[in-house]
Amino acid sequence: MSTQPNRDLDTFPNPEPQRDYTIRMRIPEFTCLCPKTGQPDFATIHLEYVPEAACVELKSLKLYIWSFRDEGAFHEAVTNRILADLVAATNPRFMRVRADFWMRGGIDTSVIVEHRADNWHPGTAVALP
Amino acid sequence: MSTQPNRDLDTFPNPEPQRDYTIRMRIPEFTCLCPKTGQPDFATIHLEYVPEAACVELKSLKLYIWSFRDEGAFHEAVTNRILADLVAATNPRFMRVRADFWMRGGIDTSVIVEHRADNWHPGTAVALP
Amino acid sequence: MSTQPNRDLDTFPNPEPQRDYTIRMRIPEFTCLCPKTGQPDFATIHLEYVPEAACVELKSLKLYIWSFRDEGAFHEAVTNRILADLVAATNPRFMRVRADFWMRGGIDTSVIVEHRADNWHPGTAVALP
Amino acid sequence: MSTQPNRDLDTFPNPEPQRDYTIRMRIPEFTCLCPKTGQPDFATIHLEYVPEAACVELKSLKLYIWSFRDEGAFHEAVTNRILADLVAATNPRFMRVRADFWMRGGIDTSVIVEHRADNWHPGTAVALP
Amino acid sequence: MSTQPNRDLDTFPNPEPQRDYTIRMRIPEFTCLCPKTGQPDFATIHLEYVPEAACVELKSLKLYIWSFRDEGAFHEAVTNRILADLVAATNPRFMRVRADFWMRGGIDTSVIVEHRADNWHPGTAVALP
Amino acid sequence: MSTQPNRDLDTFPNPEPQRDYTIRMRIPEFTCLCPKTGQPDFATIHLEYVPEAACVELKSLKLYIWSFRDEGAFHEAVTNRILADLVAATNPRFMRVRADFWMRGGIDTSVIVEHRADNWHPGTAVALP
Amino acid sequence: MSTQPNRDLDTFPNPEPQRDYTIRMRIPEFTCLCPKTGQPDFATIHLEYVPEAACVELKSLKLYIWSFRDEGAFHEAVTNRILADLVAATNPRFMRVRADFWMRGGIDTSVIVEHRADNWHPGTAVALP
Amino acid sequence: MSTQPNRDLDTFPNPEPQRDYTIRMRIPEFTCLCPKTGQPDFATIHLEYVPEAACVELKSLKLYIWSFRDEGAFHEAVTNRILADLVAATNPRFMRVRADFWMRGGIDTSVIVEHRADNWHPGTAVALP
Amino acid sequence: MSTQPNRDLDTFPNPEPQRDYTIRMRIPEFTCLCPKTGQPDFATIHLEYVPEAACVELKSLKLYIWSFRDEGAFHEAVTNRILADLVAATNPRFMRVRADFWMRGGIDTSVIVEHRADNWHPGTAVALP
Amino acid sequence: MSTQPNRDLDTFPNPEPQRDYTIRMRIPEFTCLCPKTGQPDFATIHLEYVPEAACVELKSLKLYIWSFRDEGAFHEAVTNRILADLVAATNPRFMRVRADFWMRGGIDTSVIVEHRADNWHPGTAVALP
Ligand SMILES: [Ca+2]
Ligand SMILES: [Ca+2]
Ligand SMILES: [Ca+2]
Ligand SMILES: [Ca+2]
Ligand SMILES: [Ca+2]
Ligand SMILES: [Ca+2]
Ligand SMILES: [Ca+2]
Ligand SMILES: [Ca+2]
Ligand SMILES: [Ca+2]
Ligand SMILES: [Ca+2]
Ligand SMILES: [Ca+2]
Ligand SMILES: [Ca+2]
Ligand SMILES: [Ca+2]
Ligand SMILES: [Ca+2]
Ligand SMILES: [Ca+2]
Ligand SMILES: [Ca+2]
Repeated sequence: MSTQPNRDLDTFPNPEPQRDYTIRMRIPEFTCLCPKTGQPDFATIHLEYVPEAACVELKSLKLYIWSFRDEGAFHEAVTNRILADLVAATNPRFMRVRADFWMRGGIDTSVIVEHRADNWHPGTAVALP
Repeated sequence: MSTQPNRDLDTFPNPEPQRDYTIRMRIPEFTCLCPKTGQPDFATIHLEYVPEAACVELKSLKLYIWSFRDEGAFHEAVTNRILADLVAATNPRFMRVRADFWMRGGIDTSVIVEHRADNWHPGTAVALP
Repeated sequence: MSTQPNRDLDTFPNPEPQRDYTIRMRIPEFTCLCPKTGQPDFATIHLEYVPEAACVELKSLKLYIWSFRDEGAFHEAVTNRILADLVAATNPRFMRVRADFWMRGGIDTSVIVEHRADNWHPGTAVALP
Repeated sequence: MSTQPNRDLDTFPNPEPQRDYTIRMRIPEFTCLCPKTGQPDFATIHLEYVPEAACVELKSLKLYIWSFRDEGAFHEAVTNRILADLVAATNPRFMRVRADFWMRGGIDTSVIVEHRADNWHPGTAVALP
Repeated sequence: MSTQPNRDLDTFPNPEPQRDYTIRMRIPEFTCLCPKTGQPDFATIHLEYVPEAACVELKSLKLYIWSFRDEGAFHEAVTNRILADLVAATNPRFMRVRADFWMRGGIDTSVIVEHRADNWHPGTAVALP
Repeated sequence: MSTQPNRDLDTFPNPEPQRDYTIRMRIPEFTCLCPKTGQPDFATIHLEYVPEAACVELKSLKLYIWSFRDEGAFHEAVTNRILADLVAATNPRFMRVRADFWMRGGIDTSVIVEHRADNWHPGTAVALP
Repeated sequence: MSTQPNRDLDTFPNPEPQRDYTIRMRIPEFTCLCPKTGQPDFATIHLEYVPEAACVELKSLKLYIWSFRDEGAFHEAVTNRILADLVAATNPRFMRVRADFWMRGGIDTSVIVEHRADNWHPGTAVALP
Repeated sequence: MSTQPNRDLDTFPNPEPQRDYTIRMRIPEFTCLCPKTGQPDFATIHLEYVPEAACVELKSLKLYIWSFRDEGAFHEAVTNRILADLVAATNPRFMRVRADFWMRGGIDTSVIVEHRADNWHPGTAVALP
Repeated sequence: MSTQPNRDLDTFPNPEPQRDYTIRMRIPEFTCLCPKTGQPDFATIHLEYVPEAACVELKSLKLYIWSFRDEGAFHEAVTNRILADLVAATNPRFMRVRADFWMRGGIDTSVIVEHRADNWHPGTAVALP
Repeated sequence: MSTQPNRDLDTFPNPEPQRDYTIRMRIPEFTCLCPKTGQPDFATIHLEYVPEAACVELKSLKLYIWSFRDEGAFHEAVTNRILADLVAATNPRFMRVRADFWMRGGIDTSVIVEHRADNWHPGTAVALP
């Protein structure tokens, strides 16, 4: 397996496709470049999804995140891009990506984007006391 | 671009207008003046919105926040004013402004104001376990 | 303006009466007397409300809170009393008072009381992801 | 008033029976004995309720909690027992008891039990932004 | 009772089967082996359930958790496996298992899985203010 | 024993006078009046001391703290006063009083005062790694 | 081995007596009775020591702590008593016992007691940056 | 007393000049202007000192802090300036000023400055265990 | 390089041997077996040292920590053993190992062990304000 | 001024060279590459120093930190390198660099390096109670 940055995302078969369940990942080491100034930007990416047939492979996800290191990317666009790539690779029932960017100009920014499959509806949430 | 305080708010085109998503900003450096005493007031502003065609440009938002530095403003009125200005500039699907003011007279005050476009309804929230 | 404890609550006109919005206050310096023992009790008062025509004036609220300093008051009764006084003074669309009393006899007690105007219904809450 | 452990629970009249409101208590000093080993168990009890005609008297509640000190009690059973005793004494509109027991065998356990009066329905919760 | 790792789960009768209530456990000492590399993985397991006729016996649960120590197991599969074993042993009204695995490759992963009995519906949640 | 505010401080014999050891108390319910404005001030008092022949009796300390409730007192002076009264009552080897006052005019103030007996020297502190 | 409360403390040989090192224990489940009122008191005990020839055996320490459950004990005296018992059992180079008692009468109390062997001096502490 | 920004600092007589003791203040509402860009800077000022004959008057300190609002000031220089002004006004035995500035360019900066009177030496610090 | 558990510790040359400096590592995934019961124990290991000629290689340290997984080990002995192994491998100027074991029998235990080279003395610590 | 990564460090004259004082900076956005694998590493850099004639210019420091983005660097070596570069640029009385690297292989690593000018000795630290 390559240890180069890589925009391809590998998957493995969902071991329990007959059930809706949650996979949640925290990726604190995202960096890209500001398209205006060329200076580095940093973010923590939060991913959570309900898999359909495929789950994201961990090492491949790491190389994918690495692939943005030399790319210019606006906050709003890159978060939508990451969601689109992950949806294309895994075709999940539901997926949410949150990117918490570090302070710029005295302002903290987060962008949160979701995808829901057309044919999927969340079950009734059970909130135990 | 000017580095003077500036009441004008610049925008850029929403890169993903076909999708509802959240942009959330924390602005800890707001200060204005108390209209009764002329003394400084301080607040942290929290902004979150679902963009329609336009997103708030970060540097312009910083100059806008700066523009209140020498202005007398009551807590309730200035929070409504900030929401009105941001809505006028971006015409969002939904926007919420929360201002957490620092303690005065032994009392902490927050003001929270929302705008929802007439034609917009939030999708069903998905609360993953 | 008097700096004596004062049971009267002053108000000012709501600057944005056409909109439902939230005003939230934390008042950590409440003290009264235990009606059984005469000993001091202490609490932090949390107030949140949706104003109708009037907002609570900050300094007047401080003097009102001070007015309980020499009064005997049970936890449950005094929290209901504070809500009643604030509702009488401001006639809000919605108001909630929470009093967090300090530990007595190894037990922490909070009392939370709400008022809702007959003709008022909360809008659908928007929970952005 | 006795300062012996006491299984009887005293009450006082609800000062505001025409309104649904919340009384919330934290009791960090609960201890009983493990019925299997006879060794001490410890828990923090969280009580919250909407009173009907009667409120739990604080000192009596303290003596009640003390009364379990020499009693063998399983986690699940004793939490249900405390709820049953408190419901019998106060006949509340709603009551919830949560017992957070300290780690045993590398496992933390909490038990949460509720009672709702047949004729009572909670009002619509108001979640201010 | 054995103090060997043991895949069998013992139960005891639910002391209050006529009532829906919550049992919540935190088990911070889970370890298994990565099926790819053979290296150890670690997780904290969070279990919460509404019992039907049977409750999980604490010591048996500890030995069950221990039984994964020398077993290769993927994050997603092992969390589903633990839920399946606990459901088979206790046949609960509702059960949720969350496994918070420690960081691998700069990425934190949690997996959350639920089971709901066919004939069971949660009561209306009461959210006291 | 009186339950009136009381400036007298009772003591009991130090059970281990042949050894230097520490008694540390946190008293979060101090209130007095501002001598300039007459308005209430609040503080948390931290007391720590090495007893000589006498220890401060807990209930008496509570009534002593209560005795400042209707007294005008500057921050610096009242902290020195409390130390002086406690030293007069207990004649300790060492005593430190810290008063953390709540914010006034946007400024938090603490005052920390110490007394050391003429004939007393602290032993070498042992800082275990 | 007995599972009765037991005032005897067992030890095992220090595996590294030629070296000064620290053993630190936190025991959050201490309870005794107030000698004045007979009511339960609770504390967390913190023990740290440099062993000489003997170390405290963990299960024996647990039974020792349990043995105070039905004993009347003042805060200051019982902390000194615990230190004396532990010193008698282990004859350490250095030992410190801190008891953090839960709030009584609105006042939190901790008692901290130390023993140092006549012939022992701490090495120079190394504080790495 | 004026409520204008004011560079003059008022004092009052130290009520306990025969004793070394500490006065510690936290002032979270400092703002000045960046001399290079003219944009606002913000900081929290921490002041601690051992008074000689004079103590800083609280309201005067607030007006002094306000006086920097329209002044250009580098981080290092303004912190030294504040110390110099406070030393000139109060001639303390010891004084320390720490300014924690908000992030600029992705970097957080604090500056800490001290003054010690020529003839003053701190007493031996007593570090109770 | 092997990915088997391995008691050998690899090193690499200290890149700055002419200077005393600190390397600090946190290793949260230590597990061994209780020699009495055979049941798993867990700990977080904290290592800090001043290197002489050699530094601990990270992957080798990970495999070393793994090597205790099937070994019976008492808390006090295993912490001394880890220090001895690391000292033998790296011959440091100074080294400290702290092992924070998870609660057993209601008691948390930490063991802290240090080694100092005969010919080494720490420089004067600089504590900046 | 360039907005390219830049290994040169600019300085400005210390505004208060006659006094020892502390400048402390936190730089959370450091990234370099692992020399073995080429994969990105991340760290937060903490810098504190006592300036002599020169202070580090903030924007230049940001560009310097950026210059490591495409450079292979071991944890221990790069921390020593950053200290050496900052000492060469500013010739401080004292300087400390701490780099907190993110977890690799289940192990967190920090490296802390100091420089002290030959002719400089820290003043006696004043630890106010
Ligand atoms: Ca690059
Ligand atoms: Ca952020
Ligand atoms: Ca101005
Ligand atoms: Ca506030
Ligand atoms: Ca409380
Ligand atoms: Ca008993
Ligand atoms: Ca628990
Ligand atoms: Ca995790
Ligand atoms: Ca009074
Ligand atoms: Ca304070
Ligand atoms: Ca305490
Ligand atoms: Ca201005
Ligand atoms: Ca800062
Ligand atoms: Ca094994
Ligand atoms: Ca521990
Ligand atoms: Ca780290």
